[in-house]
Amino acid sequence: METRDMLWNGWGDPDRAAPLPEPVVTLLRDLLGVRPASAPPVALADVSVPESRLPPGALIDLARIVGDRHVRADRESRVRHTRGKSTSDLLRLRSGEAVDAPDAVVLPGTHDEVLAVLRACAARRIAVVPFGGGTSVVGGLAPHGVEAFVALDLRRMDALVSVDEVSRTAVLEPGLRAPAAEALLAERGYTLGHFPQSYEWASIGGFAAARSSGQASAGYGRFDEMVVALTVATPEGTLDLGRAPRSAAGPDLRQLVLGSEGALGVITSVTVRVQPIPAARAYEGWRFASFAEGGAALRRLAQDGPLPAVLRLSDETETMVGLADPSALGGEPSGAGCLAVLGFEGTAERVAERRAGAADVLRAAGGEPLGAGPGEKWEHGRFDAPYLRDALLDAGAFAETLETAAFWSDVPALYEAVRAALTGALTGAGTPPLVMCHVSHVYPSGASLYFTVVSAQGDDPAGHWARAKRAASDAIVDVGGTISHHHGVGTDHRDWYAREIGPLGAAVLRAVKDRVDPAGILNPGVLVPPETPETPETGE
Amino acid sequence: METRDMLWNGWGDPDRAAPLPEPVVTLLRDLLGVRPASAPPVALADVSVPESRLPPGALIDLARIVGDRHVRADRESRVRHTRGKSTSDLLRLRSGEAVDAPDAVVLPGTHDEVLAVLRACAARRIAVVPFGGGTSVVGGLAPHGVEAFVALDLRRMDALVSVDEVSRTAVLEPGLRAPAAEALLAERGYTLGHFPQSYEWASIGGFAAARSSGQASAGYGRFDEMVVALTVATPEGTLDLGRAPRSAAGPDLRQLVLGSEGALGVITSVTVRVQPIPAARAYEGWRFASFAEGGAALRRLAQDGPLPAVLRLSDETETMVGLADPSALGGEPSGAGCLAVLGFEGTAERVAERRAGAADVLRAAGGEPLGAGPGEKWEHGRFDAPYLRDALLDAGAFAETLETAAFWSDVPALYEAVRAALTGALTGAGTPPLVMCHVSHVYPSGASLYFTVVSAQGDDPAGHWARAKRAASDAIVDVGGTISHHHGVGTDHRDWYAREIGPLGAAVLRAVKDRVDPAGILNPGVLVPPETPETPETGE
Repeated sequence: METRDMLWNGWGDPDRAAPLPEPVVTLLRDLLGVRPASAPPVALADVSVPESRLPPGALIDLARIVGDRHVRADRESRVRHTRGKSTSDLLRLRSGEAVDAPDAVVLPGTHDEVLAVLRACAARRIAVVPFGGGTSVVGGLAPHGVEAFVALDLRRMDALVSVDEVSRTAVLEPGLRAPAAEALLAERGYTLGHFPQSYEWASIGGFAAARSSGQASAGYGRFDEMVVALTVATPEGTLDLGRAPRSAAGPDLRQLVLGSEGALGVITSVTVRVQPIPAARAYEGWRFASFAEGGAALRRLAQDGPLPAVLRLSDETETMVGLADPSALGGEPSGAGCLAVLGFEGTAERVAERRAGAADVLRAAGGEPLGAGPGEKWEHGRFDAPYLRDALLDAGAFAETLETAAFWSDVPALYEAVRAALTGALTGAGTPPLVMCHVSHVYPSGASLYFTVVSAQGDDPAGHWARAKRAASDAIVDVGGTISHHHGVGTDHRDWYAREIGPLGAAVLRAVKDRVDPAGILNPGVLVPPETPETPETGE
Repeated sequence: METRDMLWNGWGDPDRAAPLPEPVVTLLRDLLGVRPASAPPVALADVSVPESRLPPGALIDLARIVGDRHVRADRESRVRHTRGKSTSDLLRLRSGEAVDAPDAVVLPGTHDEVLAVLRACAARRIAVVPFGGGTSVVGGLAPHGVEAFVALDLRRMDALVSVDEVSRTAVLEPGLRAPAAEALLAERGYTLGHFPQSYEWASIGGFAAARSSGQASAGYGRFDEMVVALTVATPEGTLDLGRAPRSAAGPDLRQLVLGSEGALGVITSVTVRVQPIPAARAYEGWRFASFAEGGAALRRLAQDGPLPAVLRLSDETETMVGLADPSALGGEPSGAGCLAVLGFEGTAERVAERRAGAADVLRAAGGEPLGAGPGEKWEHGRFDAPYLRDALLDAGAFAETLETAAFWSDVPALYEAVRAALTGALTGAGTPPLVMCHVSHVYPSGASLYFTVVSAQGDDPAGHWARAKRAASDAIVDVGGTISHHHGVGTDHRDWYAREIGPLGAAVLRAVKDRVDPAGILNPGVLVPPETPETPETGE
């Protein structure tokens, strides 16, 4: 089964692309000074890819392992595996620049083929970048400092291997895309319940490698909480981890693989908890007078329950703009205050019980119920934001997101510091932004903040953003937050990640990498901080 | 504040020791052939400890760091830090043998003192064994293959450093014993909710280092789920981990420290989630016709809820003997079938709601409610079993426990295989055992099994047990279970742990250890499998 390809220089299904409504274009012009883009995006046929740098004979070696049909070095295959889906990634592709294109794309069909590819590449010092859905927004697919590299596209490894109905677990192959996984599990009456915004295109292996968090993680758990066993191929052999849900037999090595972003191995099998498909779902909206008041209400639910499966809170700006409901952008304003969205899933009885319990808590915390409307609108449009970004880029605007998490008592300072950093940097560059934020995930001890930034592209959108992102990242680390709650580290966050885990933490990661990947071929430059920091790009 | 010492050659508070009732002695004689011990235990003053092997000047160096009063090399201090509390540990001490005594006991007062001690010991190649409550039952305090070693007793680091009421977290020092931690938190209205059987003596640092699981972990989470941040001292510097409850910034390095058993560093600060002290508690008993039927009922609660805070199920033998209620041993038989104990904690409303919900599930699964009596009896005696072991040893019996976990579909085979291995090995050695088991912890995808073995001591109890334990451990690994769900790896489980994580997993652990402890002074021989397996002791 051939997996459908995503729009090569944007997001998702090409048929779903749609221009911005005219009133929004007017609003962007009046509010942010957005002007139409000077030139349309370059066509795929006109993208320039570098000459292949693979050593002679490498393609033949790889074809011997996976079969001729499964090694591809044509321009389109290479362009389609170039970088990920950050706005900067897209802007560069739209301008026709693909210097980070892999030298070839290799599609293994089995764990043993992955092992053999890794060994062959280690012997020839060819870097390997595991490729699932290709949805990284943190530079996780653009290795640094390599001579030549292949994208290891796992789409052929897309089986639901088995379901254990007694243990309620399923064994999934890494290349299975999330919607296909849900469809296969649904035939047996189960769901993963993992719905990040990248859901429609992301892969199971990617979820594990990126330590993914979904929109319903309050109810179903983060992906790292769902994984009970893993198989990982490395140039030095295989890791098979997980014999019980929990163990006291040493450190939890599964948690060393989850979040390893292809730098420590290629995940070839994932055993996850599954749950019966919920009989009932209910989504609803609530309004709070302020982000602080709404945040306190969410904290109550996170600490004392009942906790909905989905729980989000937009700040005043995001609520006003209506990004909580992307389809409403530029339409009727969503009203004052801050919009919260709650989603309940489970048996009808449990949904009713939790919904009533949560309503009591939210009312006592000052919330005003808005009924099902805003919740259902959100659920309907939950995967649409990346499409909206394409339309914004087409219209000459710049749009990007970043996210972080902290303990509850640090959240207010984190919110203020990141907003100030983004606003200051972009305003200083002559492209004053609209900065919006929502609480995307809650825990008993803390929460995550998800920021969306829209501005004019200006003369150098990538440069402007690089500076703003750097200021925001500094603010995050200085306030004590984590550099990413769900996007990951990649290459973009690596320097701040190094500050987060400290020199000894970084040294530990390097020691692990050196052991499983002595030739250093696995996603070089991604995740693992170098011993001597590279000279930072100044973006000037 | 000086912490009270535990009984040096047994368990717990010396004042609480009590002999077995005469009817139990008769029962043990008739059932298992238990005969009175030939000699009483050796007095502390008669225990032989080896000459100190510390290099000259070492004590002076260490005293310079922590102060004269906090370096101890007297016989009693050394004996009190010899090994842990496994039955074999106790039998050897009772016979007056303390060849594993540390050469000195060092009591640091701060993180910086710990760092300095580690550096000084690394420079002199003196091994360091972190010592919290001293409750290891897996040889975690008896290093292998060392010239000289010090016990690093953390009892002076016993502060509740801070409570963050907004984030509901608390910063605790590692030497704080669990009851003291609960008392300090209770002054602020909070509880950890962590109650392993070792609760009365175990320390916070030990909970973290051993990846501890408590009797109420279904409700409050395992200790590894409670920890949100950690500080660790290593010979190569400090690790400071945890800026948010959850993160996608790389692998969760906290999970590499949790379960590291002193082999990768000394935990000097632990930030944990805390919860309001529950307003209501309700414990109750249920009876099931068989272990399989009861297991299926527990699985329902674990997978579909409502989940009690405490959930346990004794098999037929344990129920009959009444070990589910140690105070009843040898008294009235507890009746046929299998006894389950449920405990609910929280607000009165929530307790009532969950209790009613659980009752519906258990009734539908064939359970018969026994009311509060058996639950309250269990709760009252929940920390008594180790005292009972001392009485059994005094009476000439042998008693020991082991535990494992697996996915639900493997649990029945695991149960049968371990029982058969224990029964076969001990019967073959001429000391036919009573083998009892209970499900101690449940998860959506699996459960843990906790076995208790009682037999006559025979001529060589340590040798008999070593063989039986080896047979049981082989059975666990062969069936696919984990070698420990909550006791840990130590030295006793290390060879099976190596099989569990495979050669590459072991190599990864060694790489981490080599990086943070290049001189190899941290708890040598504990946890980390050697590159070349040592010749196994045969126990013959």
